[in-house]
Amino acid sequence: MSTLAPKGFKTLVKNVGIKDTTKDFVCIFSTVPCAAAGVFTQNLFVGPSVTLSKNNIQNGKAQAIVTISKNANVANGQQGEQDAYEVTELVAKELAIPVEDVLIASTGVIGRLYPMEKIRLGIQALGENLQEANIEDMACGIMTTDTVPKFMSVSVGNAVLAGVAKGVGMIEPNMATLLVFFITDAQLDSAILKSIFTRVMDRTFNCLSIDTDTSTSDTALILANGLAGPVDITAFEQALEMVSIHLVQQIAKDGEGATKMIEVVVSSARDDMQAKRVAKSIVNSPLVKTAIHGADPNWGRIAMAIGKCSTDTDIDPDKTVIRFGEFEVYPKPLNVQLLDELSQFLQQKEIQINIELNIGKGKARVWGCDLSAEYVKINGEYTT
Amino acid sequence: MSTLAPKGFKTLVKNVGIKDTTKDFVCIFSTVPCAAAGVFTQNLFVGPSVTLSKNNIQNGKAQAIVTISKNANVANGQQGEQDAYEVTELVAKELAIPVEDVLIASTGVIGRLYPMEKIRLGIQALGENLQEANIEDMACGIMTTDTVPKFMSVSVGNAVLAGVAKGVGMIEPNMATLLVFFITDAQLDSAILKSIFTRVMDRTFNCLSIDTDTSTSDTALILANGLAGPVDITAFEQALEMVSIHLVQQIAKDGEGATKMIEVVVSSARDDMQAKRVAKSIVNSPLVKTAIHGADPNWGRIAMAIGKCSTDTDIDPDKTVIRFGEFEVYPKPLNVQLLDELSQFLQQKEIQINIELNIGKGKARVWGCDLSAEYVKINGEYTT
Repeated sequence: MSTLAPKGFKTLVKNVGIKDTTKDFVCIFSTVPCAAAGVFTQNLFVGPSVTLSKNNIQNGKAQAIVTISKNANVANGQQGEQDAYEVTELVAKELAIPVEDVLIASTGVIGRLYPMEKIRLGIQALGENLQEANIEDMACGIMTTDTVPKFMSVSVGNAVLAGVAKGVGMIEPNMATLLVFFITDAQLDSAILKSIFTRVMDRTFNCLSIDTDTSTSDTALILANGLAGPVDITAFEQALEMVSIHLVQQIAKDGEGATKMIEVVVSSARDDMQAKRVAKSIVNSPLVKTAIHGADPNWGRIAMAIGKCSTDTDIDPDKTVIRFGEFEVYPKPLNVQLLDELSQFLQQKEIQINIELNIGKGKARVWGCDLSAEYVKINGEYTT
Repeated sequence: MSTLAPKGFKTLVKNVGIKDTTKDFVCIFSTVPCAAAGVFTQNLFVGPSVTLSKNNIQNGKAQAIVTISKNANVANGQQGEQDAYEVTELVAKELAIPVEDVLIASTGVIGRLYPMEKIRLGIQALGENLQEANIEDMACGIMTTDTVPKFMSVSVGNAVLAGVAKGVGMIEPNMATLLVFFITDAQLDSAILKSIFTRVMDRTFNCLSIDTDTSTSDTALILANGLAGPVDITAFEQALEMVSIHLVQQIAKDGEGATKMIEVVVSSARDDMQAKRVAKSIVNSPLVKTAIHGADPNWGRIAMAIGKCSTDTDIDPDKTVIRFGEFEVYPKPLNVQLLDELSQFLQQKEIQINIELNIGKGKARVWGCDLSAEYVKINGEYTT
């Protein structure tokens, strides 16, 4: 059974030979113009795909997204800029739409030029070869070292919202994300769409960190073509958040070398920002990540990770409570029998860490994964 | 041949049975009162050893340092505070000096109480058992999971300066350090000593990161007993910096699971702070660390790590130069033959990465190590 797709979207997913014979080219096309919103990486070594898309989406409108995977086209100077523009131009011509309505995203190795001859050949006859949107296929086409495709569809009123994402490493989105695309046939004003999208990305993808490294190519886009008519705005925002959290959790579970997903919930912080800072400090600590990997109930490392937020001087160790799931470990240390139970609990594939700061009403939930020897192996051998 | 020691210092290094039968207790005693300075961790979950020492060193004077290794005595509430105070009290009594002149440091697992009966027994007859200061022995006594003792002695005029340090993980000192002690018989005013010490620690130990995790117990102390008379201040600061850099490099090489030391030099930054921020971003990036581990010339990851300093908007990819040692990789990419040579270069045990930002005159040098599967193994099995 194929995943539910919104009306009026077509896709082409194929191999154009960027690196090997796996799928590396995805074009998403709406038969009618869409309201569109996007958030992008804040990395300063940003690639021309990000620069072009940022520019083209400024008017809140777009009609197509083209993605090339296995090559990020980053740090390639003027040639890289020309190549990215040529790709959007060729796609626009094939789809008979203005070049400004084409968004582009790239992901893969940094510092290698696109193989333009192969790409030009791959784009030929794109218009004729488009098919009804296949969500799973879209998710497969943007994968690099992902081991599973990441996608989800839901209904919102009469409309459908579908999202796909990729990413396993170089992931600590900063007001932006890895690659994630949403398409919907809901009818939404582009200003409203932008504010909903920014809020939801901030609560979901921006709360994810695999390895603290912010990609040069992070791009999150949404296209709404309106063919299903208006929807309830609140219901739409909730649906977008649900799909986003599902994709974020899929990414955390598929983090490079990951064997466990870690979810950190910080509550009663001074404000949401502080809660997120503390939660990120925990989920990013290599010593917390390796302890979880080894199912070691070494909770002192969580105390350390909270304490290293050294500018948050209102955090008071005497007020702080640390729990693994329901197991309180600080300030009431566990007795030996409960420590054994906790070790069992830590064998699970999904570990929740709960922190109460007892200062105010701020809260945050963030996601990450454990750190394994496999992570080191994958990343010591990437380009060679 | 024993390492040169300054006049008037005695030490006792022994096992008191904290965790196993290795040395875990070090007392350093000067026969006369000393000018003293210290810098400490900024972690908020700070242990009572740090709090006590901070307090006792405020007047710029001290006469003894007691260190317990294999147990950090952190996050142990009021009992932990009482225990730390009792240790300083027992030591002061044995040495017949005021309790305020005893500094204390602890290192090891967090959240376990000191085995006080063993410690009380260990301190008995401390005064009678002190021996001429043995620098290597001091370095051995403070080790936890270190694989080699870290120490160095140099002459400054008529005086001797000796330093010892420990630390392999939970290391990103923040205006402070792991455990590092210096003793000297140079005669120095305590205000001058404090300003020299703070400056040198900032240029050396605060430029070191093994794993981004800031310890709850970081303590750097210096005792100057004056028995060798006055020294040239500039020569002393240079000597202190030389010994510190030597110890920092020893720590970087002995980082948990480390197989290579990484040194990052950032020059022509806006200011020294920016240079340090960029250098730390590179040396802390798990993707850079794993690439170096695998001798993979994947320089795009260095561009990524520079670019993720996203608040430094004056960093311009078009002005930036990236080199591994002497090999320029950006903006002039290497040809295939030079890439092969670079791969050979990356097999070395010490890798230097040089960055020019071409903005201003700021510079910084920081040290770290690669990330290996062994790091994960060590830290997944620590307390169990």
